[in-house]
Amino acid sequence: MTGTIGASVKRREDDRLLTGRGRYLDDLDLPDALAIAFLRSPHAHAKINSIDVDEALQAPGVVAVYRGSDLMAIHKPLAPKVQHPMLKELPRYPIPCEEVHYVGEPVAVVVAENRYLAEDALELIDVDYDVLPAISSTAAALAEGAPLAHSDADSNVAVTLTQRCGDAEAALNSAPNRLSGEFRVMRGGGHSMEARAVAARFEPATGQVTVWDTTQSPHYARQQLSMIYEMAEDDIRVIAPPDVGGGFGPKAQFYGEEVVVPWVAMLLGRTVKWVEDRQENFVSAMMERGQTHRIEVGFDDDGKLLAVRDHIEHDQGAYCAGLQVPSITTSTVPGPYKIPNIHTELYACYTNMVPTSSVRGAGRPQAVFAMERMMDRIAEHLDLDPAEVRRRNLIQADEFPYRVGITFRDGSPLTYDSGDFPALLEGTLDKLDYERCKRERDQARAEGRHVGIGIAVYVEGCGLGPYEGAKLRLDNRGKILVTLAAAGQGQGYETVYAQIAAEAIGVDMDLIEVVTGDTGRIPFGQGTFASRITATAGPAVYNAGHQLRERLKDTAAHLLGCAPGDIEFDGDRATFAGDAEKSVSLQEIARVANIGKHGITLPKGIKPAIEVSSYFAPERAAYASGAHAAVVEVDPDTGGVKVLKYVIGHDCGNVINPRLVDGQVIGGFAHGIGNALYEEPVYDAEGQPQAASYLDYTLVSAAEVPRVELFHLHTPSPLNPLGAKGAGEGGTIPAPAAIANAVEDALRSIRHRGGVEDGRPDHSGKQPPGGRARHRLEGDADGARSATIQRSPRIDYAPVTPHRVATAVREAGH
Amino acid sequence: MTGTIGASVKRREDDRLLTGRGRYLDDLDLPDALAIAFLRSPHAHAKINSIDVDEALQAPGVVAVYRGSDLMAIHKPLAPKVQHPMLKELPRYPIPCEEVHYVGEPVAVVVAENRYLAEDALELIDVDYDVLPAISSTAAALAEGAPLAHSDADSNVAVTLTQRCGDAEAALNSAPNRLSGEFRVMRGGGHSMEARAVAARFEPATGQVTVWDTTQSPHYARQQLSMIYEMAEDDIRVIAPPDVGGGFGPKAQFYGEEVVVPWVAMLLGRTVKWVEDRQENFVSAMMERGQTHRIEVGFDDDGKLLAVRDHIEHDQGAYCAGLQVPSITTSTVPGPYKIPNIHTELYACYTNMVPTSSVRGAGRPQAVFAMERMMDRIAEHLDLDPAEVRRRNLIQADEFPYRVGITFRDGSPLTYDSGDFPALLEGTLDKLDYERCKRERDQARAEGRHVGIGIAVYVEGCGLGPYEGAKLRLDNRGKILVTLAAAGQGQGYETVYAQIAAEAIGVDMDLIEVVTGDTGRIPFGQGTFASRITATAGPAVYNAGHQLRERLKDTAAHLLGCAPGDIEFDGDRATFAGDAEKSVSLQEIARVANIGKHGITLPKGIKPAIEVSSYFAPERAAYASGAHAAVVEVDPDTGGVKVLKYVIGHDCGNVINPRLVDGQVIGGFAHGIGNALYEEPVYDAEGQPQAASYLDYTLVSAAEVPRVELFHLHTPSPLNPLGAKGAGEGGTIPAPAAIANAVEDALRSIRHRGGVEDGRPDHSGKQPPGGRARHRLEGDADGARSATIQRSPRIDYAPVTPHRVATAVREAGH
Repeated sequence: MTGTIGASVKRREDDRLLTGRGRYLDDLDLPDALAIAFLRSPHAHAKINSIDVDEALQAPGVVAVYRGSDLMAIHKPLAPKVQHPMLKELPRYPIPCEEVHYVGEPVAVVVAENRYLAEDALELIDVDYDVLPAISSTAAALAEGAPLAHSDADSNVAVTLTQRCGDAEAALNSAPNRLSGEFRVMRGGGHSMEARAVAARFEPATGQVTVWDTTQSPHYARQQLSMIYEMAEDDIRVIAPPDVGGGFGPKAQFYGEEVVVPWVAMLLGRTVKWVEDRQENFVSAMMERGQTHRIEVGFDDDGKLLAVRDHIEHDQGAYCAGLQVPSITTSTVPGPYKIPNIHTELYACYTNMVPTSSVRGAGRPQAVFAMERMMDRIAEHLDLDPAEVRRRNLIQADEFPYRVGITFRDGSPLTYDSGDFPALLEGTLDKLDYERCKRERDQARAEGRHVGIGIAVYVEGCGLGPYEGAKLRLDNRGKILVTLAAAGQGQGYETVYAQIAAEAIGVDMDLIEVVTGDTGRIPFGQGTFASRITATAGPAVYNAGHQLRERLKDTAAHLLGCAPGDIEFDGDRATFAGDAEKSVSLQEIARVANIGKHGITLPKGIKPAIEVSSYFAPERAAYASGAHAAVVEVDPDTGGVKVLKYVIGHDCGNVINPRLVDGQVIGGFAHGIGNALYEEPVYDAEGQPQAASYLDYTLVSAAEVPRVELFHLHTPSPLNPLGAKGAGEGGTIPAPAAIANAVEDALRSIRHRGGVEDGRPDHSGKQPPGGRARHRLEGDADGARSATIQRSPRIDYAPVTPHRVATAVREAGH
Repeated sequence: MTGTIGASVKRREDDRLLTGRGRYLDDLDLPDALAIAFLRSPHAHAKINSIDVDEALQAPGVVAVYRGSDLMAIHKPLAPKVQHPMLKELPRYPIPCEEVHYVGEPVAVVVAENRYLAEDALELIDVDYDVLPAISSTAAALAEGAPLAHSDADSNVAVTLTQRCGDAEAALNSAPNRLSGEFRVMRGGGHSMEARAVAARFEPATGQVTVWDTTQSPHYARQQLSMIYEMAEDDIRVIAPPDVGGGFGPKAQFYGEEVVVPWVAMLLGRTVKWVEDRQENFVSAMMERGQTHRIEVGFDDDGKLLAVRDHIEHDQGAYCAGLQVPSITTSTVPGPYKIPNIHTELYACYTNMVPTSSVRGAGRPQAVFAMERMMDRIAEHLDLDPAEVRRRNLIQADEFPYRVGITFRDGSPLTYDSGDFPALLEGTLDKLDYERCKRERDQARAEGRHVGIGIAVYVEGCGLGPYEGAKLRLDNRGKILVTLAAAGQGQGYETVYAQIAAEAIGVDMDLIEVVTGDTGRIPFGQGTFASRITATAGPAVYNAGHQLRERLKDTAAHLLGCAPGDIEFDGDRATFAGDAEKSVSLQEIARVANIGKHGITLPKGIKPAIEVSSYFAPERAAYASGAHAAVVEVDPDTGGVKVLKYVIGHDCGNVINPRLVDGQVIGGFAHGIGNALYEEPVYDAEGQPQAASYLDYTLVSAAEVPRVELFHLHTPSPLNPLGAKGAGEGGTIPAPAAIANAVEDALRSIRHRGGVEDGRPDHSGKQPPGGRARHRLEGDADGARSATIQRSPRIDYAPVTPHRVATAVREAGH
């Protein structure tokens, strides 16, 4: 049998993808499709006085021009994907009529014979704006007397999320040691190869609109469209094509463009297509990451954590499309560590920048960055090995299920299902050859080189609810059709779910076909996000596979006159105990049970219609985990960072296909190294994006991704029959923390060579001009050590760009 | 609660249908659809030497012209719908390349901007034929040395079907009385208001072709297309629109046009549409009925049947599209009577006329005609009341399940499930006021008027397998969507299945929506034919409804914190024991279980995805039954027949909606009265249709349909949980027999007035010139009575046209 669970089967998708035959949304053959282009606001915050489209309507090839006010039937606020009762929601309209809140927000739409003509017409639209003051940082949003990001709001704070366990304040006050730090993780994007794209065609003969959408969540999109259009769900078919060039989070959200494009198709009775170009993607696809953490830890003299308090500013952007990221951040702070007292408080702030939502990692890299940077500071403070400090605080393998003490975002106790964090850490250190690395680091330092080692350990909630489902059907060719609601974004669904189905049914995977992401084929689904599909759709396919196996065996047994237990599968045939002479093909089974003979009763005992469906609803989230270790060398003059070695220890529970998980982890790491060192969509103080092309935004290419040494631990999740967790984000999450730790470690040698710069101001949370790195010590009796530590450069930002490194070095007096 | 099972709910369909808003296939909004027209053979049998399409291709608006030889990818024989191992199958190609076998067979297809231009181009196609001898009757087909209907066949007999029970030959030889008759039922058609029609659109972006088809069997059509096109079944979506103007059998078959039209759509990448016009419908939609029965009965002096032998010639037409009709005929001969010895032998003959297949009644009217005519002859022979002869032979109500002694077409013993034939007969006679009618008849005869009474009793196999199915889903608006595979033909599916679902779920039927006949919505189905849907899809909906009820109650109970047993439905809400304060709406249930909150675990105990499906496979066919009684007056000079009174006793088991069943029975009776008195698609000896418009073919209008008195008996079928049988054909089946019996009875007075014409030739089965009525007596000791009987006019044909009546009267010497 080929391709059972755990086999490193090659991806079925790769042949077409690697030979340039991937078929992206923009490649779909949509004859006579009109092109749609959006006019987008050039201002971060402005009042719209008027929009004159007369000239645009006269432009060559223009079929229609619509403003928000021309589309009042769909002028309805888009609901946040993840809600909170305290959320001060500001309406996000498909196309706003009165006020724009970020550069890139749609203000009008042109439909034309082709995209060139549509864009030409955009330039003829005359919008009269009154520019208003813009908010371009959480600090600005929270500053006293700050202008409002939305003129009609009463505050820039969208919601305050608090997590408490024990009494963090008291524990901090009584802790033998107390350290604080302020860390900032800058915005970053998804940067899928194919950007967002929507095409739509209305079929008047059925009253149904077909929407092709590069969404990660076709059923979610359908649900939103159904509500906004006031159409029955079955009258909207959302198809997420199998090849979309990745999702990475931004495509899991729901956007105004997704409302406008199908509506225009229905208004005009024409096929229409909008493909977000790269420039639009920079200014209108959601981003993530932007957070500031003021974190404080209390610990004993052995380095054991007593308390953590984290004050978090979260950049929500111009609208709240969902509160998943801030929720995840607050619950990720404690990570793999036993911390008796926890207090996190997150302020989600409206700013005049493109809204934020999940990007691979989704709120976790920031929390891991803050916590793991502090673990290194504790080690430095106590003069302990950073690995040893972690070792002393890790949750142990026999402590699962482990209740962290705070809550998951549904209000249930945050509970880790399984894991072995010590083994992950030790395995990572072993693979790194930690002691040798330390010797080499010290040797390099002795040679005047700046080499450092960084470690980061993380826990990642994944496999989230509410559910995911699958239908399995024997088709009339004798093939088994696996239909997933979930839409693949390149993860290899066509391969993995064929493996799972093959294993459950007990047939070769070449009998299995997998189709995904089409609301016309399966009525319910949630979507591909939050590393949830293997642990939710996986069990659904597995359970349905067992049902189908029983149906096939029952039918074959009736046809062969034996007991179902005697049936064995051999290729495309069901045999009586392996006897090829006494066998029936799957196609024959389909002929009998599915096709039937017209007007003739089914043979005795045969049940009709071999299709089964199964939906799997996990009891709670599963928790993947991992440890990263980096060795870097820093050029203090240029600020350049070179990764010399990188080790990843990864535990996503049972692995369906090791080859694919390796791909996920390494791909995730590429994303992580971008977040660690390169990517930053800078906005100026007026909310103008300063890096809206790949000339300015340094997206990682293969050349920048160092070689990774990777190993896996397998602690099965008890929450699903596959024991699976999620693997899509683990490569990303701790990378900025590990790299920053390594860079700071590399720069520690500088204090020995550079001058001492004492008496730096104790920044108490106010935004310093120019965004310099800050670090302060509190309740530390050893003033001398404090002074020494203050002298070495501090890496308090991600990404750790050359400019930031050089600045840190300069500020440290190098 | 509204609309539960058994309530005479008004049809949901009627509002649109009665106000002219029915949307037929030809009304579908298919923008830019090209029109297709078929060139059809003008010859009943001819060799195609060549087809020159050059000129047609140059005609204005012509997009393409295809001959059979231009479409070799689909040049594959269409499989008969119902097979037989002994069938000599002759290939029926979508468009034949070498030889045509009936007038109307497609030989080429033109695709043009509109139908006018397409038809203009048809005239420019030059086909060079060699005309071959044609077969236009079964007698001609079976004649010694007859030419072959297909040049490459070795016989005109497609198959011989034999049924045997006991020893009919011996029983006839030893019977005290023995009578034989020869009866012919002429061809008749379906004559749906909308004729056949197919439109198709290929969506290159999905690789799927959508086919709108007025078929009664969308899943069967998809299966055929999937095999012929070698495409996955899901790449073909066949939609049978809800409004098609009736099916009546011919649309349950699969035709070459259904293969050609979607293929052309794919070839051209254009939407195409073909709507069969009325003229085409006359020559290319399948027909039925054409049979000759030479039936012989043996009986004792009390009139109790001892044996029946029936030699049947069945006109299969130019191809065998399915053997359902001849199979049904052979098993229908014994009807409601206990007959210990049975022998039927049916010769299905190829002729050069449009192929035959099922038309409402499907092989039964012919068998009932032969048997019921003989029952009257027995009565006459023994000078008994025709009702009394029937009474003495009927299967009794306590004899069910009753094994007839012959087999169903799947080889299983033909077994009637339930019924009460004596009650049906007596009820019918009561309603007729039989004794008073007889007195009035005799009074009329005394006045020189020709009044007669006819009775016919029948049994009808219905509710056939293999299975039918339904999906029920709670949609996001809180409505319950019932999806049937079956395609309604006007029966009121939207009403009936809402009633059944409402009853099973326990909610008002206004919460239920019904969609039908779309292979894109439910993967398996068989089709609407053979009065099977109420007894197959009905139980599927009913069983699924109970499942859905449990799902809804479970979910509501979890949300309200009570036991599922405490949940009651009130409007669109589920309440805790009827308390509106403690309630949750169906929409809220959908929000929780189907939509879910993104990333949040389902509330404890809630199962996701409220959709259930159920397929019902009956163990064997159910048997509806009925008795018709007619009083007619005949004008022997014109041959005109006037129906004075008509009573129908009908038993289709439990009735879902009496109003709709009445409609079915009366509609069926309209069809039956057409078969009895009016409709006949005459062919001449060269196979040329002589009645190919409504000027020549006297389709029944409302004016011709007499008032019917109708009552129902309800003997529930034990074979399905609804106790339902089929109701669509019972109005049709016995009408020709009842009318012919009545007409013959009316003409019996003629023997008292007319001269005795003795010594008529004993026609022994050879076709008499001019198609005169024949009747002969064998083994009858009473020569005098025989001579008397021979004198009165014989009605041995259906329809009983004025010409036939007048001829019978003339031949009887009037």
